[in-house]
Amino acid sequence: VVFAESGPDAPLDEIARRAGVGIATLFRRFPNRQALVRAALEQSSVEEVAPAVERAFDDDDPLRALARVLEAAMAATARERHTLAAAKNAGVVIGDVSAPYLESLTLLTCRAQEAGLVRADLVPDDVPRIMAMLAGVIWTVDPESDGWRRYVTLMLDALSPAGASPLPPAVALRVPQPGT
Amino acid sequence: VVFAESGPDAPLDEIARRAGVGIATLFRRFPNRQALVRAALEQSSVEEVAPAVERAFDDDDPLRALARVLEAAMAATARERHTLAAAKNAGVVIGDVSAPYLESLTLLTCRAQEAGLVRADLVPDDVPRIMAMLAGVIWTVDPESDGWRRYVTLMLDALSPAGASPLPPAVALRVPQPGT
Repeated sequence: VVFAESGPDAPLDEIARRAGVGIATLFRRFPNRQALVRAALEQSSVEEVAPAVERAFDDDDPLRALARVLEAAMAATARERHTLAAAKNAGVVIGDVSAPYLESLTLLTCRAQEAGLVRADLVPDDVPRIMAMLAGVIWTVDPESDGWRRYVTLMLDALSPAGASPLPPAVALRVPQPGT
Repeated sequence: VVFAESGPDAPLDEIARRAGVGIATLFRRFPNRQALVRAALEQSSVEEVAPAVERAFDDDDPLRALARVLEAAMAATARERHTLAAAKNAGVVIGDVSAPYLESLTLLTCRAQEAGLVRADLVPDDVPRIMAMLAGVIWTVDPESDGWRRYVTLMLDALSPAGASPLPPAVALRVPQPGT
């Protein structure tokens, strides 16, 4: 929460004060900034994205299910944009935090694809890229707005089988390392 | 070129050596790292993107013209990804470098829209966001590949009037400042 409100370089003593603990306690729980940032991202992922994923698998409209999870992920990305920047600055690899959610997103995409609601030429490696593309919009909208919603709809139109053009081949996914 | 090959933190003496000048000459021409990074981006923009823009305005297929400029911009972004990272690290606002090119891209988008080849509900503020989304893909592909091409095609499908869904409203464009 402190990262979300005060920016990626929020001082550790402010974080401790807001958490109502001493700085010593903070350091005991999170031996370094990386551990703290990671815990913040995991908490946000568990509280905001996981419930949306759970509801999505119960939704009998596969396209709406996919849309809801993309929206939940974008809402969390927008809210935690400073935590994500802090993660990047601290060299935290966010891959492990986002992996379970990306896996669910891939399953939901396949389900929509099998129902003929998503273009047949989409492959699993496209899914993290679709998220990367959507995340690219976050910094171009007022942080308090949900202006990113327009681009989720635009992306869902890209995924639609209607009028789908032949796509160039998908190259292997490269996992970016911090600092590259 | 040195940024492109050696990464965003290329030492200034390597840059001077590769340019065949002394470090004193380098500092005389570029008083700081920001000026150097900016010049590198401007050179790449003038050499790689500007000719594609010029050809595009002569192309009588507005959609192909738009695609060619997106591709040229993506090729330049991929090649200069380290320079762009260096720009970010050095706090260089790349807005002024990309502004003339984004303006041309907006004109080309409008031309394709008037020809009925791009969805009618696209607005000028969407154009830099489309580029931001595409740029989000760069770090997910092997830097030597042109794996980003697949996502240019996917994005062009999103822009197609065929099967376009109603879009949520476009919020005002926010120009990201370095370090935010």
